[in-house]
Amino acid sequence: MEEVSKEFINNLGRVADFFGFNRLMGQLYAVLFLSPEPLTLDDMVKKLESSKGNVSINIRALERWGLVRQIYKWADRKNYYEAEPDIWKAVSGILQERERKESQQIITSLNQSVEMLEEASKTATGQEAVTAQFYLERMEQLRRLFKFGDTLLDMMVQGGAIDFGTASRLSQLAYEDDDPEGTRDLDELERQQMVEGQPQGASN
Amino acid sequence: MEEVSKEFINNLGRVADFFGFNRLMGQLYAVLFLSPEPLTLDDMVKKLESSKGNVSINIRALERWGLVRQIYKWADRKNYYEAEPDIWKAVSGILQERERKESQQIITSLNQSVEMLEEASKTATGQEAVTAQFYLERMEQLRRLFKFGDTLLDMMVQGGAIDFGTASRLSQLAYEDDDPEGTRDLDELERQQMVEGQPQGASN
Repeated sequence: MEEVSKEFINNLGRVADFFGFNRLMGQLYAVLFLSPEPLTLDDMVKKLESSKGNVSINIRALERWGLVRQIYKWADRKNYYEAEPDIWKAVSGILQERERKESQQIITSLNQSVEMLEEASKTATGQEAVTAQFYLERMEQLRRLFKFGDTLLDMMVQGGAIDFGTASRLSQLAYEDDDPEGTRDLDELERQQMVEGQPQGASN
Repeated sequence: MEEVSKEFINNLGRVADFFGFNRLMGQLYAVLFLSPEPLTLDDMVKKLESSKGNVSINIRALERWGLVRQIYKWADRKNYYEAEPDIWKAVSGILQERERKESQQIITSLNQSVEMLEEASKTATGQEAVTAQFYLERMEQLRRLFKFGDTLLDMMVQGGAIDFGTASRLSQLAYEDDDPEGTRDLDELERQQMVEGQPQGASN
């Protein structure tokens, strides 16, 4: 049993590392996830042979990500910690907070670039016009990919259905300025193309 | 135009960083992606004001990930580089090579742990039996989450359709040893539950 638990703790440490978190964060989550009772910082320090300061910092990070909850027990006036039992809820919280924030920043920036290029290409001539058109095609390609990723994350968080066949089709579409007025509610259209069903409501 | 290009290069640098790659890798990909013609290492060194050694190392990494192609031109006996134009193909290659490899390692390890626990719980009594059962429930919960992630990646790479409503349902299922013989082709069943359509063939 001890062996299984150690293997598990190591594994989640590696997973955390892989996803750009701290290794200790993964190990701490694993310790709490395999504990039927909430644990104190000291319990975790003992288990992982790490310093209290380090454990404390990483537990607080886990709390911020919604992966761990703090429980104050009046009986011994200590803070206890337990793993969020609904893992999917925790994971979708991370996707929402971290991955979606990133993808939306990129999309906003790509939208701005596309607008600037569309503006520039109205007056550009010769080589400059060719370059503007080339930039537009390329940015539009990437914008579609990120829109797809963003829709995907949204569906994951909300629990919808998605067709991955669309991703490869979308990324092969050439850019055409099908929206010369610049109103750009193309986004909604693409979204409808990708999403097969409507969101079926969040996990709880 | 120069401004748009700089913004784009910075952006892809940040994206690369976010996904656990080197920032320079993202910037190099961006430079090539926005270039209508293949470029030499020297062109890229000039553009990014980085050292030739650094550029060379990161271009080779991009080649290994299938994001950049090398072209040898006999005319001036130099190596040129161009961005893989099918971004989706490149991204699905990364997901296959990196994300799926990781998720499959974890699943294999969780499968082993579940087997060990099932074996142990046959002979365990008292507190030991309770702990084994608790471990089993928790590991099964995580195993289902990673199976879901793995199926998701597989669908993304192959272009299928998936129902995200299943993810939250799956992660809430309690562990039941519905497979006491240990043949465990439950995997296939879960997969069928999650996948709405069959893969529609790869992107090209």
